[in-house]
Amino acid sequence: MTELTEIKKQDLLYQGKAKEMYTTNDPDILWVHYMDQVTALNGKKKVQMKDKGKTNCAISARLFTELREQGIVNHFIEQLSPTDQLVQKVTIIPLETVVRNYASGSFVKRYQTEYLQKFDQPVIEFFYKSDELDDPFLNDDDALALGVATREQMAQIRQLALKVNRLLSQIFAKMNVLLVDFKLEFGLSTAGDVILADELSPDNCRLVDLDTKQSLDKDVFRKGLGQMVPVYEEILQRLQKEEER
Amino acid sequence: MTELTEIKKQDLLYQGKAKEMYTTNDPDILWVHYMDQVTALNGKKKVQMKDKGKTNCAISARLFTELREQGIVNHFIEQLSPTDQLVQKVTIIPLETVVRNYASGSFVKRYQTEYLQKFDQPVIEFFYKSDELDDPFLNDDDALALGVATREQMAQIRQLALKVNRLLSQIFAKMNVLLVDFKLEFGLSTAGDVILADELSPDNCRLVDLDTKQSLDKDVFRKGLGQMVPVYEEILQRLQKEEER
Repeated sequence: MTELTEIKKQDLLYQGKAKEMYTTNDPDILWVHYMDQVTALNGKKKVQMKDKGKTNCAISARLFTELREQGIVNHFIEQLSPTDQLVQKVTIIPLETVVRNYASGSFVKRYQTEYLQKFDQPVIEFFYKSDELDDPFLNDDDALALGVATREQMAQIRQLALKVNRLLSQIFAKMNVLLVDFKLEFGLSTAGDVILADELSPDNCRLVDLDTKQSLDKDVFRKGLGQMVPVYEEILQRLQKEEER
Repeated sequence: MTELTEIKKQDLLYQGKAKEMYTTNDPDILWVHYMDQVTALNGKKKVQMKDKGKTNCAISARLFTELREQGIVNHFIEQLSPTDQLVQKVTIIPLETVVRNYASGSFVKRYQTEYLQKFDQPVIEFFYKSDELDDPFLNDDDALALGVATREQMAQIRQLALKVNRLLSQIFAKMNVLLVDFKLEFGLSTAGDVILADELSPDNCRLVDLDTKQSLDKDVFRKGLGQMVPVYEEILQRLQKEEER
C-alpha cells in the first residue's frame, strides 16, 4: 500500500451529482472531491451553492470517523483538504438502502401516511441504483432476480443499516436533531466484505430540529424552504460542539 | 352451520371489478357472483363480455378444488350455478401477493428486463390493496409499518404462495401452458388462520402457450390482442381434458 502522503490524484473516474471520484496512484484508493453542487428530482433540478462541498465533506468525515470508532467498517480514509478525501476503492452494490424512523418523502407520497408518523420499528427499503430506470423501489426477491446482490449480502446490509441507524440516531439526538430517514450505499472490498461507502450528510439524511420541527437537510432545497447551505452549516456546528464536549 | 341447501342470497356486500359478493343467511358464508365484466388499468378500462363470468367461475372452482386436495386450505365451498359460488367468509388481508416465475407485466416495466426471462427462484412481490393509492408496491417492513399484516402472517403467506406456485405450475404444465406469474389474495378466518381467497382464473394469472408463446390470459384484453373469452374457454377446456384423464 502506498504511503498516504504520497497519494496523487489521477484520472476522473466518475462524476456524480455532488461528488467527483478520481483514481490515484494506489489502485485501492480513490480521491473524492465534494462539489458545490446540489441536485434534486434525480438530477433534473441542479444548482451551484458556495461552501456546500466543504460543509458536506466535513460532516461526512466526522460521521464516518465516529461510525468507525463504533465498529462500522467504512470506506473513509482521511480528509485531505476542506473539499477532498481519500476513500477505499470498493465495488458499489447498486442498491440505495433507505432506513426510515419516521414517515417522510416517498413513503408519505406512496402510502399517504401522516408526515413524521413514528414507526414502531425502523423500516428498511431498497431502491435499485439506475438513472435510466429512475431508481425504482425493489424487494429482496427482485434484487436477487436482477443479480444486484446475494441473499447473504442483503442480510448483511440490513444488519449494518440497522446498526448505523442506532448510532446515527444517538449522535443526532445529542444535537437536538431527529433522524427521520437516511440513505446508505454499500460496496464490496477486494476481499468481498460489505463496506459502508458513499457519503453521510444532509444530502442523504432527513434531519428535523427536535424543537422547531424545521428541516435541516436537502428538503430545504427540494421544497424551496430558504437558504440551504446555512442549514447544513448549522448541522456541522452542532456536530463540532458535540465533539468538543 | 346452516345446511348448504338452505343457504339463501341476501344483501350485496361488495361489488368488485369482476365479482359481486353477497351475504347469506349463514354469517360465515358468502355468495359470489362472477360477472360478465372485465377491467384493466385499475378499473379505468371496463368492458362487458358474454360468458366471461361462467368461464372464470368454472376455472376458479376447479383450481380451488384441486388445491384443496393438495392441502391448500382455501375459501371455496361449492359451485351453485354456472356463475355463482359459495365461499367461506374471511377478513381479506389488504395485500396482493404476486408470484413470478418469468419476467412480465410491471416487473418488465419497472426494471426493463426481457419479457419471459426465467427467474432462478420464484419472485414474490406484495402490493397494498388500495384503489385510492393505486395498489402501490410495498415490502415487508412497509406492510408492518402500515399495519397491513404481521411478520408471521407475511411469512405464512409467502410459504403458501410458493406451495400454490408449485402446484399450479404443475397443473398448467400438463396443459402445455407456462405459468408466468399470478396474483393471490389471502384472508383471515374467524379462528385467525391465513386462508387462500379471491379467485384463480386468467384474470389474475399470466398464462402462455408453451408452443406458440401466445397469451392465454387477461393480457389479450390489456394489449388488445383479440377476443378474450375464447382464450379463457380454451384454458377451461384444457383443464377439463386433464380432469378426464
